[in-house]
Amino acid sequence: MKVIKFGGSSLATGKQVERAIRIFLADDNRQAMVVSAPGKRFSDGIKVTDLLIKYAKTYLNKQDTSEIVEQIFARYQEIGQYFGLTKEDLNFVKEILTSLPDQQYPNDDYLLAAFKAHGERLNAYLIAKILQHQGLNAKFLDPTEAGLIVTGEPNDASVSPETYLNLDQIRLQADEKIVFPGFFGITPSGHIATFSRGGSDITGAILARGLHADLYENFTDVDGIFSANPAIIDDPESIHQMTYREMRELSYAGFSVFHDEALIPAIQGDVPINVKNTNDPENPGTMILPEKDFHAEQTVTGVASKKHFSALYLHKYLLNKEAGFTLRILQILDKHGIPYEHMPSGIDDITIIFDRKFLNDQLIDLICSEIQATINPDQLEWIDDYAIIMIVGEEMKNQDGINARILNALLREHISPQMINQGASQISIMIGTKKEEADTAVKAIYNEFFK
Amino acid sequence: MKVIKFGGSSLATGKQVERAIRIFLADDNRQAMVVSAPGKRFSDGIKVTDLLIKYAKTYLNKQDTSEIVEQIFARYQEIGQYFGLTKEDLNFVKEILTSLPDQQYPNDDYLLAAFKAHGERLNAYLIAKILQHQGLNAKFLDPTEAGLIVTGEPNDASVSPETYLNLDQIRLQADEKIVFPGFFGITPSGHIATFSRGGSDITGAILARGLHADLYENFTDVDGIFSANPAIIDDPESIHQMTYREMRELSYAGFSVFHDEALIPAIQGDVPINVKNTNDPENPGTMILPEKDFHAEQTVTGVASKKHFSALYLHKYLLNKEAGFTLRILQILDKHGIPYEHMPSGIDDITIIFDRKFLNDQLIDLICSEIQATINPDQLEWIDDYAIIMIVGEEMKNQDGINARILNALLREHISPQMINQGASQISIMIGTKKEEADTAVKAIYNEFFK
Repeated sequence: MKVIKFGGSSLATGKQVERAIRIFLADDNRQAMVVSAPGKRFSDGIKVTDLLIKYAKTYLNKQDTSEIVEQIFARYQEIGQYFGLTKEDLNFVKEILTSLPDQQYPNDDYLLAAFKAHGERLNAYLIAKILQHQGLNAKFLDPTEAGLIVTGEPNDASVSPETYLNLDQIRLQADEKIVFPGFFGITPSGHIATFSRGGSDITGAILARGLHADLYENFTDVDGIFSANPAIIDDPESIHQMTYREMRELSYAGFSVFHDEALIPAIQGDVPINVKNTNDPENPGTMILPEKDFHAEQTVTGVASKKHFSALYLHKYLLNKEAGFTLRILQILDKHGIPYEHMPSGIDDITIIFDRKFLNDQLIDLICSEIQATINPDQLEWIDDYAIIMIVGEEMKNQDGINARILNALLREHISPQMINQGASQISIMIGTKKEEADTAVKAIYNEFFK
Repeated sequence: MKVIKFGGSSLATGKQVERAIRIFLADDNRQAMVVSAPGKRFSDGIKVTDLLIKYAKTYLNKQDTSEIVEQIFARYQEIGQYFGLTKEDLNFVKEILTSLPDQQYPNDDYLLAAFKAHGERLNAYLIAKILQHQGLNAKFLDPTEAGLIVTGEPNDASVSPETYLNLDQIRLQADEKIVFPGFFGITPSGHIATFSRGGSDITGAILARGLHADLYENFTDVDGIFSANPAIIDDPESIHQMTYREMRELSYAGFSVFHDEALIPAIQGDVPINVKNTNDPENPGTMILPEKDFHAEQTVTGVASKKHFSALYLHKYLLNKEAGFTLRILQILDKHGIPYEHMPSGIDDITIIFDRKFLNDQLIDLICSEIQATINPDQLEWIDDYAIIMIVGEEMKNQDGINARILNALLREHISPQMINQGASQISIMIGTKKEEADTAVKAIYNEFFK
């Protein structure tokens, strides 16, 4: 069987939902559909999830919520009416929406999580009703009933391993279809907690693993995954096939079509992922595969860049003779809960690269002064405009001179990398540049390998 | 004033000592001479230091020591007689040698240190006597008298900061010459402790700093420092000028003409170092300078390689989401007292590079299994044949495309680096290769920049 997941833009209107249902029903093996909340209907539209966040905040601010409830309801009403559901059929949407504030929540974070989750929950409920209305053996399956258990932060939860024991109990009849809401699970004490934003991809992957699917189809609004960011490269090539770990490396460096964390359940369950376009279902899209099933079509699969890094440069003579030097730095970072990204080192120097989002000016001052006091370096420099470029390809390890080609391409643009790092896996090369050089670097590397 | 240091091969025979003394006296500013123990007289000869180690072991094994004492004494006798010293003049050498076992030592390690140190101590004593015999205002200065205080391991000691307060008290008359034994200092409780092997370079640097020398001349048996290892490159170019930090990086990767740790006192005292050849004192040799006084003559100053590295490769999906991951690894290494050299990382992988000399098979098994249990990686691989190549040059940071040139040179030899690392200082590029590729890589890079 196949698990199929539709993103918010694929479910934004009745017409879009019709398209999604047609895709769902076109293949009998597609038995489980995971749905997002209705997304934007036009480029400056608003997502139902954002309306629900507004609803939660309005309620918490003790302001009148009737207008925002109407606005949310209207979105589901449009979809339901498109399929001929009656006002009575849709009553449940408004009832659930208006009763949200009356539930018990451990705290406001859980309240927010539950409000947000109802974008998906109501959509799954509604789409199951639409399918039933069309005479199909379809049912809404709730994370509570299925046993999709999560732990951790209420708005950034992680799946709990017992989920897979629970999902293993589910038996579907040959013609049975289930509609499952994405984005959230249930804590051991019975409260709703969501994954990070965009987390319906994760739910799809969990279901694909838990139901032992042969394929996880992830429908979105683009023709698959591009080999470079279309905002930097005009009309970049699509990737036909890539491995899990290629996807992982490209996600890290900014590829956002498929949710980073959704890879893990697919990898664990050995389920291939097919990223496809709801508006062009004939297009084969991008297959994300285990390494054993992958056949490289080109040297470089993708080039990604991410600009929000900073770096701390430390120099001290005989640095590497000081046992425990790095340990002391990491203990300082750990104390302040600051993760680091990379730590390239020379003989007497070390550069610690940070994701800027985990830092603020105060924290930077604090860690710099603590490191100064503890390590007493000869030189300590904070570099605030660091970008990382990732060049990824399984095939790179089988070819000589890839890094020379990359550096020659950069050289032609007069870019001298601040860091070059090729890990032992050799499927990716990471390059550090100045922020303002990053786009030019991506273009130069893309043109070298794709033109 | 200048501090001048002679290595063991420059003081191996009476004829060589005469040459050294001629150099010492050729410049009135040369007021302090630091001496090694007499070295090898021919390529398969034996150094006095090794004879002294044998003496210590023979004594500790309660075997007869008279023969080895005679052998050591004969070395000093040859030098003394060359300068016309009488048997009575040289009596002190045998007396001190035979009384060595009668001294009090805290343990056998201190005994070994004291025996070893007498190679230098007796030589300095003897050379001072020779100079006095020639009518010069010369004296033997002992580390005890000068206050060269050391702490740490008896056979791998470090200089203590109070040394510089003590040396500051020394006043030399305009025509006064001192002869100072290299390699050892005195612990706060009055025992002899040596630096690591070859540590006379360190003594020279300490004296140069402590006596506020304008120049530290380090005389050895080669024409200065070569830009590559003559065992790999035929007739490599000599380096005329280099900075402290260039020397430091090249020392790390295997350049051994000048002792690694001897740089630090010179840097702290801002004393330039001149490495010269006793057998060709007119040759300007190699100047090692502060960065401010350095004028680059070429792009790359030197290419070095060191083969005895190992690497631990770890892969785990979402590795970099696990805060404290590296911290836990470093705590394991710290617990076993194992230093690491470098730690290049990809997205989901990290490679930890070790100097093989700090490891044995048992330790490798132990840390691998502890890391396996603590981190639970998807993949853990031990790579035992790792080499590091360092390409060093202050001028590299001012030129585009150095790394592309290096990689193109390697590419022509079909070498794909396993790691490339260019630190923020940009004066060196470090490349990881397989052990068996290292020599070819050095040749390719040398030819690119020096031919």
